[in-house]
Amino acid sequence: MSNKQGARNWYIVDGYMPYKGKIDEAGFEGHEAVMILNCQDADAEVVMDIYYEDKEPDQNIPIAVPARRVKCLRMDDPNDTGGIVLDRQKQYSLRFRSDIEVIIQYGRMDIAQPNLAYIGMMGYSE
Amino acid sequence: MSNKQGARNWYIVDGYMPYKGKIDEAGFEGHEAVMILNCQDADAEVVMDIYYEDKEPDQNIPIAVPARRVKCLRMDDPNDTGGIVLDRQKQYSLRFRSDIEVIIQYGRMDIAQPNLAYIGMMGYSE
Amino acid sequence: MSNKQGARNWYIVDGYMPYKGKIDEAGFEGHEAVMILNCQDADAEVVMDIYYEDKEPDQNIPIAVPARRVKCLRMDDPNDTGGIVLDRQKQYSLRFRSDIEVIIQYGRMDIAQPNLAYIGMMGYSE
Amino acid sequence: MSNKQGARNWYIVDGYMPYKGKIDEAGFEGHEAVMILNCQDADAEVVMDIYYEDKEPDQNIPIAVPARRVKCLRMDDPNDTGGIVLDRQKQYSLRFRSDIEVIIQYGRMDIAQPNLAYIGMMGYSE
Repeated sequence: MSNKQGARNWYIVDGYMPYKGKIDEAGFEGHEAVMILNCQDADAEVVMDIYYEDKEPDQNIPIAVPARRVKCLRMDDPNDTGGIVLDRQKQYSLRFRSDIEVIIQYGRMDIAQPNLAYIGMMGYSE
Repeated sequence: MSNKQGARNWYIVDGYMPYKGKIDEAGFEGHEAVMILNCQDADAEVVMDIYYEDKEPDQNIPIAVPARRVKCLRMDDPNDTGGIVLDRQKQYSLRFRSDIEVIIQYGRMDIAQPNLAYIGMMGYSE
Repeated sequence: MSNKQGARNWYIVDGYMPYKGKIDEAGFEGHEAVMILNCQDADAEVVMDIYYEDKEPDQNIPIAVPARRVKCLRMDDPNDTGGIVLDRQKQYSLRFRSDIEVIIQYGRMDIAQPNLAYIGMMGYSE
Repeated sequence: MSNKQGARNWYIVDGYMPYKGKIDEAGFEGHEAVMILNCQDADAEVVMDIYYEDKEPDQNIPIAVPARRVKCLRMDDPNDTGGIVLDRQKQYSLRFRSDIEVIIQYGRMDIAQPNLAYIGMMGYSE
């Protein structure tokens, strides 16, 4: 069996924070999340870069992922994005670089219409 | 043509069992499933590990996948998860290790709103 | 630039033909499709195998994909599956083997609820 | 850490521009988009080829992606497709070849029913 446990470089291209929705119900707010799985016995130090269509990227936002845990980042929570407030309904992309191998998946939950629609996919890794 | 028939290590990061739904109709219950395809002429012995945000993983849950069959695991059925009862609406991740090459795909069917929404994707393999 | 143009072996694990739907409107019938892209200047000879949960696979169903074309297979059309009639709402998996490199993607369109829900993803390749 | 930053060849097989929808609301029009991320410090020169079911491909449509930017192509906008007008509800596929490594993701937003449904996925790369 392999010792790799993932990859050190991950990319998510189609970041797009959906319309928040008008429904007054807990748990159904349009949002995006990034999940990072660290199967290793050491903590992972990850840096996140945010790319845009029309300006220079924000880079080197630090993210700590403890050993043997999954960490969930909410892209609409500045506590999870190094204080950066992403505009809703604007395109952006994400790059993650980790000091050890991890696995990164992306999810979007959209209730703009207002039915629920999903995107769920692995990032691109190398 | 390749003889690989898949990979021995698979990861699904964004495990999240959706709200069960209130609809009294057979076949439309919010759930997650993991499908394992074994194209080989030998049975596969797979072990599944479940990772969480805030506690140590549950590991080495055994899963048997017969030769030339696809096996479907319902993540809300403790018979398919080694007796572990996963909480709905809590993040978890899955790692699978197999003694022979297999292919693993993940699906989520969510009726929380209550329209049907899907995630379907291959796991990450190495 | 690479000369590969894809891969010769592809797998789709979560085949599941959805409920057909009750809506009398052209073009909105629950279905699955497999799309095969051949970017090469030679025709591709592909064979498809269908795996099940509880019986031996159907194998070596021939599919011709002309040079520089995309071919779309409807899994509910026996003309596209070598005469095999797949049951709706039963799990199956697909393996494709090609004599030259191609790229294979899967799509499911479900209107069971009866809102439209989608899965779209690349197959697993090697 | 790797210096690759993606791949030079990308494929999206299941291009299918959905029904435009009847809703007179800004921002909810059925469409497809292709997002190209260039993390490098040099501009990328990309060429796009469009493959069809029943005719020869359109090839070598030039796309410029500036250094450290994400670029979004709307497939229903001839300004983004080299002047080619794609038919709605007809199958097509895309090949991208870049002079430097980039990462390409595909998204479809469908409101035909008229609820919102999504496909979001990475292209196939080599």
